[in-house]
Amino acid sequence: MHRIYLDANASCPPIPEALDKIGLTMALWGNPSSFHEHGRALRAYLDQARLNCAQALNAQAKELVFTSGASEANRLFIDALVHKAQKNTRALKVIISPFEHPSLLKPALLAQELGYFDLKIMDVDKNGMLFWEKSNLSSCDVLICCQAHNETGIIPNLAQLLLEVSDQAIVMCDVAQGFARLSPVPSRIDAMTFSAQKMGALAGAGGLVLRGLAKSLSAPWAGGGQEGGFRPGTEASLLIIAMGEAALYSNRQRQANQETKVLRDMLESALIASGKAYIVGEHQERLPNTSALCFFGHPDPDALRIACDMQALSVGFGAACSGLAPVGSFALNRMGLSMHEQKRCVRFSLAPHLSLEDINSAISRMREIF
Amino acid sequence: MHRIYLDANASCPPIPEALDKIGLTMALWGNPSSFHEHGRALRAYLDQARLNCAQALNAQAKELVFTSGASEANRLFIDALVHKAQKNTRALKVIISPFEHPSLLKPALLAQELGYFDLKIMDVDKNGMLFWEKSNLSSCDVLICCQAHNETGIIPNLAQLLLEVSDQAIVMCDVAQGFARLSPVPSRIDAMTFSAQKMGALAGAGGLVLRGLAKSLSAPWAGGGQEGGFRPGTEASLLIIAMGEAALYSNRQRQANQETKVLRDMLESALIASGKAYIVGEHQERLPNTSALCFFGHPDPDALRIACDMQALSVGFGAACSGLAPVGSFALNRMGLSMHEQKRCVRFSLAPHLSLEDINSAISRMREIF
Repeated sequence: MHRIYLDANASCPPIPEALDKIGLTMALWGNPSSFHEHGRALRAYLDQARLNCAQALNAQAKELVFTSGASEANRLFIDALVHKAQKNTRALKVIISPFEHPSLLKPALLAQELGYFDLKIMDVDKNGMLFWEKSNLSSCDVLICCQAHNETGIIPNLAQLLLEVSDQAIVMCDVAQGFARLSPVPSRIDAMTFSAQKMGALAGAGGLVLRGLAKSLSAPWAGGGQEGGFRPGTEASLLIIAMGEAALYSNRQRQANQETKVLRDMLESALIASGKAYIVGEHQERLPNTSALCFFGHPDPDALRIACDMQALSVGFGAACSGLAPVGSFALNRMGLSMHEQKRCVRFSLAPHLSLEDINSAISRMREIF
Repeated sequence: MHRIYLDANASCPPIPEALDKIGLTMALWGNPSSFHEHGRALRAYLDQARLNCAQALNAQAKELVFTSGASEANRLFIDALVHKAQKNTRALKVIISPFEHPSLLKPALLAQELGYFDLKIMDVDKNGMLFWEKSNLSSCDVLICCQAHNETGIIPNLAQLLLEVSDQAIVMCDVAQGFARLSPVPSRIDAMTFSAQKMGALAGAGGLVLRGLAKSLSAPWAGGGQEGGFRPGTEASLLIIAMGEAALYSNRQRQANQETKVLRDMLESALIASGKAYIVGEHQERLPNTSALCFFGHPDPDALRIACDMQALSVGFGAACSGLAPVGSFALNRMGLSMHEQKRCVRFSLAPHLSLEDINSAISRMREIF
């Protein structure tokens, strides 16, 4: 049986141009920090990749620090905030959405525990609508809200948040899921994080943009002087070069991802028609490719996972990076889904290469299961 | 003019098998943490790479955590120690060699500053011989000493250190420079760190081995559950797979690196015969491929750097990762070299592919310069 990949939010298939670039540049070696020509040649490739990635986000090359991915970029951002709180000797007022990735949420909760953050997590209702205290938003030092939620595809109302947030607040946005699917976030956003494997290249590279009010954040990690001293460690040149190539085709990818919506909608309609599933966050603006369906009536979530795999459907259960066992989801929990419901949520996230035939086949196979 | 690469300690040329593996596996994609077959396939490759790397170090696969390189592995180790100090609410007695990489030394100095470490840096004489207080070594909680020094190639006397260190001390060794050049370190070493670009593969992957007394160290970085929770972030699969392939050929690389000694010795003898240069650490055991020469009589270190590059010689000046400007070296400073001398040190580090012709040519070109 032809396997159908419906897990693009965990990792997107790379675009051919990125793979071609790997083929063309893999024989390059050296250290981009070296003074000599071997180093300079590699550095020129990194400069080009930096420019391409920055431009895809309407940012400037000098504002971008390469990392090993969004997880590390998220950590560096939180660590830099903790550093700031230590210097100021007062806790930072941080307001954060419940839709954040564990790599952002967990260090933030830890910083709260250690007294560096006065952390407020926004409320969210069962529909996925965010709520916040106006006073919290207008007085916060830092606002953290992703461009789109990896599990449900919900797109928080950033425009509204930006209207209400204090002019002095650092605003940070994890754009990993939106990079190749949505238009860039507004320039008011001071910090952005992203991962190569979500925008047409391969895992192991990513970036952190620091601009505006985030420009003054100081490096939280002492080591070698790479990436302006902000991120020690020899850069993963090959993967960064591939990422830079993929970034050149961001608009094409955004268009292609928008076009998956028709197939996504077909899949959703067909699967909820049974009356045995509902769409999580149905009434929110969502990523065009993502559908989180709760098969609330299914007797056995483990059997559901195995059945999907037996039907050669690669789908998601919770964030892939939470490990193999499906544990409860922070966001779904906050939305008021019971553990029973959370365990029965299946994430279908489409990549642009899927055909109508694939989706029809996925629908038939899912109908075998529930 | 044919460019000659003499900067293998910054980054070694990848071996053909590692590049072939990249070619064969670059079209694989998915997330190794995903439950479904796409994830499992990638995970099987990571498992194999983990086994290969561990075996090359006489370690076990389960003891190895993949990172983005030795810099990150070094940081994770220091962060885990800080975490331990916080839990114990007492400073850890740490003894460290002056030969450590900035990614290890700088976070250690910071931990000292913040009161988490009671840090002692071993003394070293102008010849590169280490000295320590026996009482410090027998009472320390942690001993940190690299397998070989990246700038001079000096191989510290680990056997002697292990004889005198307390049985209860965690012993950590950055094996980045020794991985593909020396036999594995003894099993008494509890923690090891390494980088792919120093053992036949490409930058952006590396590892941290935690065994023995280091096994109980807890994860310092909250995030996704990858790498047993110790290192959040989707693994750089392609680079890790290449690294695992390179590890399979560790013994062949070790042999080939040993064979560079003849050429290294020729280069050294020819260049010091002028009386205008001396070998840093000459009387210590050193890596077979490395020669740090101090051209003490040269009038202008900047001109020296540029002249080497103009002569199409890719050589090292300080650790590549310290950035582009040659700044003073912590180790050379401790050895008592003046800033005048430090700025005139050139590191020649040979890779196995060099020929006798290359070395003769390098000698003639250097003779043009000084």
